[in-house]
Amino acid sequence: MNNIASLVDRQDVCFLSFIDENGFPSTRTMLNPRKRNGLKEFYLTTNTKSKKVQALLTNPKAGLYFYDRALYRGIAFAGTAEVLRDQSIKDEVWRDMDIIFYENNYDPDYCVLKFTAVSARFYQNYTSTDIVL
Amino acid sequence: MNNIASLVDRQDVCFLSFIDENGFPSTRTMLNPRKRNGLKEFYLTTNTKSKKVQALLTNPKAGLYFYDRALYRGIAFAGTAEVLRDQSIKDEVWRDMDIIFYENNYDPDYCVLKFTAVSARFYQNYTSTDIVL
Repeated sequence: MNNIASLVDRQDVCFLSFIDENGFPSTRTMLNPRKRNGLKEFYLTTNTKSKKVQALLTNPKAGLYFYDRALYRGIAFAGTAEVLRDQSIKDEVWRDMDIIFYENNYDPDYCVLKFTAVSARFYQNYTSTDIVL
Repeated sequence: MNNIASLVDRQDVCFLSFIDENGFPSTRTMLNPRKRNGLKEFYLTTNTKSKKVQALLTNPKAGLYFYDRALYRGIAFAGTAEVLRDQSIKDEVWRDMDIIFYENNYDPDYCVLKFTAVSARFYQNYTSTDIVL
């Protein structure tokens, strides 16, 4: 588990997949999670107005994928993504750099997604294994 | 269009998303397409036995995502993925390096997927635009 947590934490970005309004799976690059609880809960920031947030409000099933380019390793989590409305978590995960994207941590377009994993599969050396979360 | 084709061709890997047997979108790293026709058709190699191939045989809706790490640009295609049975296309896209994964180009686990795009969205400078294919 530690090597997977390390793989997650070493990345600068991750890949969120969701199902769009026409039923197609789609992937977006996200900044790496600002906070996580083990390998079960991941907190991500994004734009409230984005298509993926609108799609996830309709169908919360999501995938979260971390890819280690140097080692050709990947970890794919399946789970659900929830749009958080609570200001305290928005304050907690806010970083100074976010002013590139938002006016401040009260900006209505500043959105925190909580991804909760239900299963995970780890890829390395051309094989894959299920991970117990 | 040329800069998007160039973004695609410069990558060593791409990210294929599909919908798994429980309805969750999931993402896998793939070797970059061996062949493409414009930005409409992409030919990818993978393992016949893999979960993603089995999932795509059930639901062919798929996403194909290319991410330029250096420039923070991405292109997300929505479309369908088809498992090709024709030996001539398998021969055409076979590369010597594939013996890492398969016995030869007749190996039943050597699989060619054809992804056909129906729409695309391009991400750069924190904005996104639809691309006419």
